[in-house]
Amino acid sequence: MNIPQLGSDTEARSGASVVLTTARDAGVDVCFANPGTTEMPFVGALDTVAGMRSILGLFEGVCTGAADGYGRMTGKPAMTLLHLGPGHANGIANLHNARRARTPILNIVGDHTREHLKYDAPLTSDIESLARPVSVWYRSVARDADLATDTADAISAAMGTRRGVATLVLPVDLQSARVRSAAWPAIVRPAAVTFDAARVEQVADLLLSGHRAVLLMGARALSARGQRAAARIAAATGATCFSETFPARAERGGGLPDIDRLPYFPEPALAALAGRRVVLAGALAPVTYFGYEGIPGELARPEDIVTLATPGDAADDALEALADRIGAATNDDGVPIERWRVEDGPLTPQTVGRVLANALPDDAIVSIEGGTCGYPFVTASARARRHTILTNTGGAIGQGLPVALGAAVACPERRVFALQSDGSAQYTIQSLWTMARERLPIVMLIASNRRYGILQTELARGGLPADMPHASRLTLLDDPPIDWLALSRGYGVPAERANTVQALSQALDVALAHSDGPRLIEMCLP
Amino acid sequence: MNIPQLGSDTEARSGASVVLTTARDAGVDVCFANPGTTEMPFVGALDTVAGMRSILGLFEGVCTGAADGYGRMTGKPAMTLLHLGPGHANGIANLHNARRARTPILNIVGDHTREHLKYDAPLTSDIESLARPVSVWYRSVARDADLATDTADAISAAMGTRRGVATLVLPVDLQSARVRSAAWPAIVRPAAVTFDAARVEQVADLLLSGHRAVLLMGARALSARGQRAAARIAAATGATCFSETFPARAERGGGLPDIDRLPYFPEPALAALAGRRVVLAGALAPVTYFGYEGIPGELARPEDIVTLATPGDAADDALEALADRIGAATNDDGVPIERWRVEDGPLTPQTVGRVLANALPDDAIVSIEGGTCGYPFVTASARARRHTILTNTGGAIGQGLPVALGAAVACPERRVFALQSDGSAQYTIQSLWTMARERLPIVMLIASNRRYGILQTELARGGLPADMPHASRLTLLDDPPIDWLALSRGYGVPAERANTVQALSQALDVALAHSDGPRLIEMCLP
Repeated sequence: MNIPQLGSDTEARSGASVVLTTARDAGVDVCFANPGTTEMPFVGALDTVAGMRSILGLFEGVCTGAADGYGRMTGKPAMTLLHLGPGHANGIANLHNARRARTPILNIVGDHTREHLKYDAPLTSDIESLARPVSVWYRSVARDADLATDTADAISAAMGTRRGVATLVLPVDLQSARVRSAAWPAIVRPAAVTFDAARVEQVADLLLSGHRAVLLMGARALSARGQRAAARIAAATGATCFSETFPARAERGGGLPDIDRLPYFPEPALAALAGRRVVLAGALAPVTYFGYEGIPGELARPEDIVTLATPGDAADDALEALADRIGAATNDDGVPIERWRVEDGPLTPQTVGRVLANALPDDAIVSIEGGTCGYPFVTASARARRHTILTNTGGAIGQGLPVALGAAVACPERRVFALQSDGSAQYTIQSLWTMARERLPIVMLIASNRRYGILQTELARGGLPADMPHASRLTLLDDPPIDWLALSRGYGVPAERANTVQALSQALDVALAHSDGPRLIEMCLP
Repeated sequence: MNIPQLGSDTEARSGASVVLTTARDAGVDVCFANPGTTEMPFVGALDTVAGMRSILGLFEGVCTGAADGYGRMTGKPAMTLLHLGPGHANGIANLHNARRARTPILNIVGDHTREHLKYDAPLTSDIESLARPVSVWYRSVARDADLATDTADAISAAMGTRRGVATLVLPVDLQSARVRSAAWPAIVRPAAVTFDAARVEQVADLLLSGHRAVLLMGARALSARGQRAAARIAAATGATCFSETFPARAERGGGLPDIDRLPYFPEPALAALAGRRVVLAGALAPVTYFGYEGIPGELARPEDIVTLATPGDAADDALEALADRIGAATNDDGVPIERWRVEDGPLTPQTVGRVLANALPDDAIVSIEGGTCGYPFVTASARARRHTILTNTGGAIGQGLPVALGAAVACPERRVFALQSDGSAQYTIQSLWTMARERLPIVMLIASNRRYGILQTELARGGLPADMPHASRLTLLDDPPIDWLALSRGYGVPAERANTVQALSQALDVALAHSDGPRLIEMCLP
């Protein structure tokens, strides 16, 4: 990240161009935008500052989710551009997910001229109240002299120790103000990510004293290096390894060890952790996703938990240090790349997972949203070529397609897949249009079972009948069935339908033979 | 509104059924829902409490916008059912519009079990911070004994003096709690709506002393009675009449006087008010929609404004009292119903407005969103049969289709039209599916000009070129063009395309001949 050179520039420029120049010089060069009237000077300034790519979304949740996917793949923030409080509000759900993923985002929200706020015009709202819950940092720029430093502060905060969404509100009069001498913005470079050697000692003592343990891995522990080190520790000590249930990003396949996700439902998760110390390596202490009567919210007792590395630490380095410290062999017996044999027949979540695992080219990225096919795919994908998975970290659904979009912008040399349930796809369905517009070669696989499967499962867990009129009407999506082929074509995305294993394999072959834009495959599931 | 009979019931029931029974007995009998795991006991309870209609939306903004449309037409709240903070967040934009429309809504948001909040599980967020900016009332139920009274308080608040969105958060453990003796909920009946006779005297003195005046009308002033009284006053005094620019609801046509909307842009709005006292009849003091350099935010000086009736007053009664007080004749020379002659040719906003005005059956409802065709239609529709228009009150776009949906649920005996710009339609495009599912005979007219026209206008106003790469890329929707026919069919809605006046007339005839579900007409505009 470079120090911006604004101070040397004595020519007057617009406030918006000061923000843009500061951001660009700090390495922020993509803007996912859904602007309105109060962002027009900012839009105008995009045409005066070189080196910024602007990408239009038809809905703000597309923009914020794309910024999340972009940030997860690059480690640096993309910028959003949203229209006052209501525009920001449409982006909150995916900012919530980004917050849980600790993704750096520069969330730019336009606002009325400062003088106009007191009139409570129709679009006026309490932006701060709406933004704080998803932001690690919030500021509304108060005067033109602060534009550069506020932008720099926002980027510093997004990349800082708390890492996440920094919301910068830009009143429209400051966007168009003529600024002559901007302050030198001081971007605080993110501190080098490290780990605590004393914790390595503590965990080494624990493991060497014969305690049965689970390594619960998140963040950088799920890099290739982190996973290999964890596998060494497991082989040497009998510890088991789990990924957190919803990792922001994890490497899979290509000879890596098969590290499963901690189960979603509490009973199997409790069973996986029972009788073991839980060593946190980049993960948070495990809690149930929802509270259930008679089940503890904490999946492990606090006294059984020890932290090797926090989500902000260099958990991969900590795991390597731990492996070395306990004298673990440097073996490398991960799972070999091997195709699954899949008999032709109707599609099931299991066959979908295996067919997709077989089809992945090297260095693919797979954005996973939805329970139907997500777990079976991850189970199958240890045998696939090396790939990266991105999951829904915060539970706000409608995240899979925009994250795939942002990942494809971040990594034009990698093939991106979205393994997506039909219900959750609908929340940000407008993603398809931006994918087509930007010619992003994303392959979307829609698991079309025409129901909210997870809700029917939860009804059953709660002893509630799913076949009563309201319960079935509120969990079934079959009336009318969504015609995914028509919908996809409506947004300019070629689509086909697969009912069988063979049809899905062929559809994937066709999709991968094209790299000129997105393709959608509707997978008809029972 | 009846007092619920819960207190007489000694059988244990679920907390959710207590809420539902209380709401139903208070007259709330429609629930626009997008539930998740934490709302499953509520969904289960819908099958145990008779008399509640549940309607599924694929996206929360559909639910909140539909509740707004429903409330505008019935004057009573619909219920929403949203999934924790992130689900609520997706509904905020249309709750913002509802707040500006003063629409009563019972906004039900599920939450984690109370015990679970401390674990900060993935879906946990600060719901209160997200809900306060759009709510006139907020409460998270704290204990089962409060369920009925909290529900009653919420409904009282939604219908009360401040009128608007009452947000009631229901922890899932309280939804499934067994409740034996519910408190008698005390629903405060809304106070009778009245007006201030002293203000009538004040305005009468003003008008009779020869001051030139504008009657600026909103809320109940835009009822048929209010408009007729205003026309009497205008005829007697030379006052001019304007509707507020974005009325929540206004009656038009069918012999009513032609009361235009105050212009959107400040220059013509200032011209309309210049040199006149502004008499507020159910409208707020007029301010510019956005702040513009060199233009005052207040469209009238405070000393030139006098309030006849606030938005919460009986502005129609006040206008009648004023008309009588000044001795205005009880003439009834509104605009006669008369068809526009429209030559065949390419569609323009003006011809669209006239063709639609000609096609409206008696008592139609027209939800209007978007500048392209909205103003020309309202200009034309004074000559149409009697109809009701609903406009975007808060500027959060994506409101037109859900409001049409909610209005159709509220008024099954009336034909509903959505006159909708293409860009704004995309924010809540999932509305189409619910319209198809509920067989609502809504006619959608999509003004397809493949651009954000208002933003290109605003760029020009700001002296910014619209043909530069970023500016054009962020305001044009032509790459790819959205295929509205395919998109509509994807959601199960029959659609056709109209390029000419005659084609549009015929498409409207066909649509009106069907009442078995929604239809969409893409109107191709230059």
